[in-house]
Parts: sequence; C-alpha cells; structure tokens
Amino acid sequence: MTDEKTLSAQDGRLLRIDGARLLRRLHELGEVGGLEGGGCSRLALSEDDKAGRDLVVTWMHELGLLVDVDSVGNVVATMGDDRSVAPVMMGSHIDTVRTGGLYDGNLGVLAGLEVIETALVSGVSLERPLAVAFFSNEEGARFAPDMMGSLAYVGGMTAESIHDTIGIDGARYGEELERIGYLGSLPCPGFTPHSYVELHIEQGPVLESEACDIGVVTGVQGISWQQLEIVGQSAHAGTTPMAMRRDPGFVAAAIAVFVRELVVDMGGTQVGTVGVLELTPNLVNVVASVARMTVDLRNADEELLRESEQRLDEFCRRLERSEGVQIDTTSLARFEPVKFSDRIQQLVRKHATDQNLTSRSLCSGAGHDAQMLARVCDAGMIFVPSVNGLSHNVAEYTADTDNINGANVLLQVALDLATSPHE
Amino acid sequence: MTDEKTLSAQDGRLLRIDGARLLRRLHELGEVGGLEGGGCSRLALSEDDKAGRDLVVTWMHELGLLVDVDSVGNVVATMGDDRSVAPVMMGSHIDTVRTGGLYDGNLGVLAGLEVIETALVSGVSLERPLAVAFFSNEEGARFAPDMMGSLAYVGGMTAESIHDTIGIDGARYGEELERIGYLGSLPCPGFTPHSYVELHIEQGPVLESEACDIGVVTGVQGISWQQLEIVGQSAHAGTTPMAMRRDPGFVAAAIAVFVRELVVDMGGTQVGTVGVLELTPNLVNVVASVARMTVDLRNADEELLRESEQRLDEFCRRLERSEGVQIDTTSLARFEPVKFSDRIQQLVRKHATDQNLTSRSLCSGAGHDAQMLARVCDAGMIFVPSVNGLSHNVAEYTADTDNINGANVLLQVALDLATSPHE
Repeated sequence: MTDEKTLSAQDGRLLRIDGARLLRRLHELGEVGGLEGGGCSRLALSEDDKAGRDLVVTWMHELGLLVDVDSVGNVVATMGDDRSVAPVMMGSHIDTVRTGGLYDGNLGVLAGLEVIETALVSGVSLERPLAVAFFSNEEGARFAPDMMGSLAYVGGMTAESIHDTIGIDGARYGEELERIGYLGSLPCPGFTPHSYVELHIEQGPVLESEACDIGVVTGVQGISWQQLEIVGQSAHAGTTPMAMRRDPGFVAAAIAVFVRELVVDMGGTQVGTVGVLELTPNLVNVVASVARMTVDLRNADEELLRESEQRLDEFCRRLERSEGVQIDTTSLARFEPVKFSDRIQQLVRKHATDQNLTSRSLCSGAGHDAQMLARVCDAGMIFVPSVNGLSHNVAEYTADTDNINGANVLLQVALDLATSPHE
Repeated sequence: MTDEKTLSAQDGRLLRIDGARLLRRLHELGEVGGLEGGGCSRLALSEDDKAGRDLVVTWMHELGLLVDVDSVGNVVATMGDDRSVAPVMMGSHIDTVRTGGLYDGNLGVLAGLEVIETALVSGVSLERPLAVAFFSNEEGARFAPDMMGSLAYVGGMTAESIHDTIGIDGARYGEELERIGYLGSLPCPGFTPHSYVELHIEQGPVLESEACDIGVVTGVQGISWQQLEIVGQSAHAGTTPMAMRRDPGFVAAAIAVFVRELVVDMGGTQVGTVGVLELTPNLVNVVASVARMTVDLRNADEELLRESEQRLDEFCRRLERSEGVQIDTTSLARFEPVKFSDRIQQLVRKHATDQNLTSRSLCSGAGHDAQMLARVCDAGMIFVPSVNGLSHNVAEYTADTDNINGANVLLQVALDLATSPHE
C-alpha cells in the first residue's frame, strides 16, 4: 500500500474527506428509487436496489478497487489486490425500507468509499488496505430476517437457506438475486477483515437532544420480540355483566400498561414497546374474542433482558387466572446484546475530541451489520445525530455538517486501524 | 272483536299458544338466508330480507289480518278492520346481522303472530284488537342507525332522510326498499297503538346463570359510544428512550384499563367496553403514531351515565398533559336510558308467576324497537334466556321450552291489555 506520493502516518492525522463529494453521492444515490416528498424506496433485490447497487459499484470501479460479489449478493470493494493482508473494512447497506430515507445505511457505505478515495488521493501510507462493503437485505423489509447478508458473511446462515427465502411478494431470494445480476462467485462466509467500522445515523433522538456531535457506540441492545395471542369469550357489550366477562381486549391493555411500568421500574437501557395490538372482531359493541399484540423488549444487558421477559411472563400467567383467558406467547425474534470493541470505542472518542467534536457513549437500540461482523473481528460504530430521531421515514434527515463530521471521524479511525502494527 | 264462538276473559286465562306451530315457523323463517352451521343472514332490504318478509306476510294473510306497509317498509298486521280502536301491538324485527341467529327479533314477531292465531282460534272476547309488527332495519348492520324503522314509526326520523341513507355496500335505502316491493303507502309516523309488548331473547347470560325463566324488562340502558383518536409521535422502538416517547398505544391501553376500573368502581348497572382498538402503523418495532379506539359506556340511570362519561373525559385530559398526546373524542351514538311501563312490568311478573315460571327484573343492555314505541305508548318487554348469553352469532340458541314459555306470557299480557277498560 505504498507508492511514490506517500504521506506519513503523522501527516495523515490532518487529512479530511471531501464533504461536497460525499453529499453529492448521498443525493445521487437517494434519487434511485426516489420518493415524492424526499426519501427513497429500494427494497432488497428489487429493480431499484439493482440500480442503486450498479451506481455504487460504478463508483467503486472508478476508484480502481477490487470489487467482489459473494453468493448472497454482498459486495466488498478493496484497495489493491493483495489478499494476504486482512483489510480494515467499512460499510453498511444500501437497501431501504419502503419509505426509506437518504442516510440509513447509505451514509456508512458512501462515507467508507469517501474515506478510501481520500486515502488514495492523499497517498497516505498504510500497513493494511481499506475496504468498503454493502451487505444484502439489511432492512428485512422484503425478505426476513433482517441483517441477512452480514449474517451470512460471518457464517451465521448458509447461502442455500438464504436463496430459498420467500419474500413478502412471494419472490424467491435466489431467483431475484440472479435476476438483478448479483449472484456472485465468492463463497459465504467471506474473508475475515482486520476490523470493521460502520458510520450510521443514530435513528433516535439522544444525540440531537443533547446537541452532541458524535455517538461512540458501546454495543447493540439485546432484542426480545414476543407475540401474544389472548383468547377469551366474545360477548355483547351491553348485556354481559362485568363479572361474567373474559375480555382479551382488557387483558391486552393491562399487559401494555404493565410493559410501561416494568421498563420504568427497571430503568437503565431497558425499553419496551407494544407496537401491534389488534382485536377480533373489533366492533364497538362486542367484547373481543381474541386479542393479538406484540411486546418488544430491549436491554444492553442479557441478564436484565431475561429478567424483563420473566416478569412479563409472570404477569401474563396471573392475568390468565384472574381474567379467565388463555395467553399463548410466541418468540418472533431474540438476539443477545452485542458489545463493540473497546479499542474502536476509544479511537472514535479520541478522534472526535481531536476534531473538536463533542461525543458521548450510547448503546444502539437498533440492529446493524456491525453486530454480525463483531462475531469475527474487532467491530465498532460511529453515530451521527438524526433530526427528531426519525428514520424509516421520508423525513429522515441528518445535517450536512454531521454527515461530514462522522465521515471525518471514520477516516481517522480507519487510518489508525490500517496503520497499527500487524497483530 | 266478538263473534259467536267467544270465550270470556276469565276463560282466556287458561289459553296457551301452540308451541309446535311457533317452533315450526321459527325454523321455517330461519331457513330463509340460512347459514351453514345454523343461523341465518338477512341483512335489511336484501333479497333474503325480502324472502323473509314475504313468508311472514303470507302467514299474516293466512290469518286474515289487515296488513299495512308504511313508507319505510314497516309491516303491521291487525285483527279486523276497525281502525277506531287502538290495538295492542306486539312485534320486533326480522332483519338480522350477517351472522344472525334464529331467535333475535324473529321470536318477538312470530310469537306475536302466534298470540293472534291463538286468540282468533279460541274466539276469546277482546275490547281492542291485537296487532303484530315487524320494523325495518332494526340491526343497523347494512344501514345506520339501528332501530331505524321503529324510530321512523314514532316520528323520530323522516321517511325522506331514511330513503337517502346509503348502506355499507353503497346502496340507497329508498331504492332497495322499492326494489324488494316494500315501499308502502302508509305514512310515517304510523298510528299510535294502545300499548306495545315485545318478546325477545335476553342476548346476555343473566337469566341462564340464575336458571330464571322470564326476564321482566325494566327499561333499556342509556348508551354512550365514543370514538377516541389519540395522536402522538411515531418512533423507533429501540432507539427512543422511554422519557422521550409520546406513545398513543400506551395511552389507548391506559384508557382501556381505566374504563374497567371506572365501571367496577361505579357498580350498579354500569358497564363499559373497549371493543375497537387499532394502532398505526401497527408494527412490532415502531411506537405508534396514532391509536383509534371506541369506548361503550352504559347505565340505566342518565345521571350516572353522564358521570361515567365525565370521569373518562377527565382521565383523557390528564393523559394528554402527562403523555404529550392529543386525544380527539367523537360521539358515535348517545341514547338516554328508557324506562318501560310499570303496568306492563307488573303484568309480565304476574303472568310468569301464574304459569309457575320464575322471573326477575333486569334492564336491557341492548337496544330494541320497544324503546322507540315507549315514546308514544305504554311499552314493555319480556326476555327469555340465551344459552351462553350468545347472540349475533350462528350459535345463538334459546331452548324450545323457553321460547314457548315466553310466548305464553306474551299471550296473557296481551290479552290483559286487550281486555282492560278503554282509557
């Protein structure tokens, strides 16, 4: 990774990315699948996803990178062609939800590309190459589960089972991948990078509310998604005395109120949400026969997450007895918390400070590709503020300055990782 | 109302209806629009409603009754043709909900017909004629509001506004009424009967749970239907700290739990139900932006009903402040409680006892045509037990004995009313 016009590692400290170029690419990519009122829609392996991939791959080729596509459609672009040294990988995803924004995922990929272009133009001297990746189907909005590409990349799911996944539109992953031309020849799991750093918008309100520039991400909260089906007895709302009711609508409401009390009582990083609640038959004058609801519990600590699950379960069992209903619980998803590399957290904090940016530690409440890479290498994330905490929404917005700040911190962290001694 | 073969009023006390004939007609009518698994579907002014009407009108003509059809399709069949004496009217409705049973409404109409046939065959001497009516669109399952026909009959709604009503299928009431041949020539409001007595299934579990034969209906509970739209802020279930949420899903649940606490605290005849609860966007990992719910409050006492509405409203206002949401309340329906004639209640109780049937007073939690007739004449109702309290359900069932018992009490009450001195 050296040539005539090298900068010393020391001089590299002063390097900054080209903010205008980064923003131009963010907006150009955002026009692919662009929606009225802003935002864009590029569901995984759709025509729009293909167009977005083609655009980013064109940019990768323009920088002379070695572009690899693997058997689930993950794309990794690496400086040079020496595969003997594990690269410092950056990246994220470029698929979006149906009403996606311009920044979620895209920022991490295009900032990675920008870091590489900055390093190439400067001729800074590196011990190991830089790479930038975009992983397939991070959002899970068309094919479940989410973070599918990065999961396969680290060996958590086989390419075959991914190919057989059927989307919400009935399409098969494998056929769609081939149709858009991204069924690559490289196997999964892929090569193990030296380290992985992902810049991402916070998708929450914490940094903005504290006017903080940079989030040092400590890890990803453990997630427990449960679906509860509560079966009682349909009854006439006028003619049935209260004492003779077995009302799943009331029971669902009592559980939702309990979830709030539970998380407030537990404090710390514990959060809890009832996002789905449906009654059958859902008529004004009929006591429901069935209620369906979901409970989303998250905590950065596995033991506390388990405690919250257990307390919820005990409450449900009590309600079964007192209200004469049956409550069936199904786990929809369960991920243990992930802790990111201490070394990368330290580097993010140091370089934010060096660049006169304020920073704070926070745990990600959302899942990210970085949590999959953390299974195989040092991994970490950098957050930048989301206006009003919005994402998965066409109104998703992160200020130009914040995008540029985040990319400059990513640049310095990546240069540090790429110039550290071989381990 | 006298002819050669008269019975004295005294002898009339021993009269009983022909139970087998009543049950045969109930089942024959139930086959019109019959559903698999039992029950029937005769939405107002549908082809099946027309077929049901034609069948009942045929039976009315077979008894030589004078059959009147008014401008909203109410059908009243009267003994004789002397319009100078107000008749004792019986009746109910024969339209059903989409998954209706054989008894709801139909029992009151066919028992009325049976009472008239029994009186005619016996030649019992009467001071005033008997009449039996079926009122249009009592259920309100196709055209809103419910109890439309009886409301028009007593002058509470004009025929013109009813004709202009658009059904859930886009059909206009007036056109459908004409199409099925029941746009009658008689005006609304119709003639005022001497009194009105309606036999109906309880549609609730009280009589069955107490093994009681006959319900003496004291009145109809006042009904308050409110729709609440709760607007908060959609947010990510993982990334949004609890303290920064404005969660309409939690607020809706808190209101549903409050409704239960409120009605338990108020006691007496107060009931309350949250039968509709919907979240938008209704996703497991998204704090809802909007919740819509209904609250159905009922009480036999208008002052207490108002108190329950007021306490609910105060709770909502507190939640608006504490949770940072906006709650818009719309009244979907509001009926004051109706009290039935003391004289008819006394007659029902007396004749139940005379026939060795147990009885108890109870207030109807559901609306009935009798509450409309109560605006213009002495009106009352007789309830018989509903197995499992079910109605609006193909499993709706009332035992043969109970149907026959109810019709025999109706017979004696009607004979008493029809032989009492002119007032």
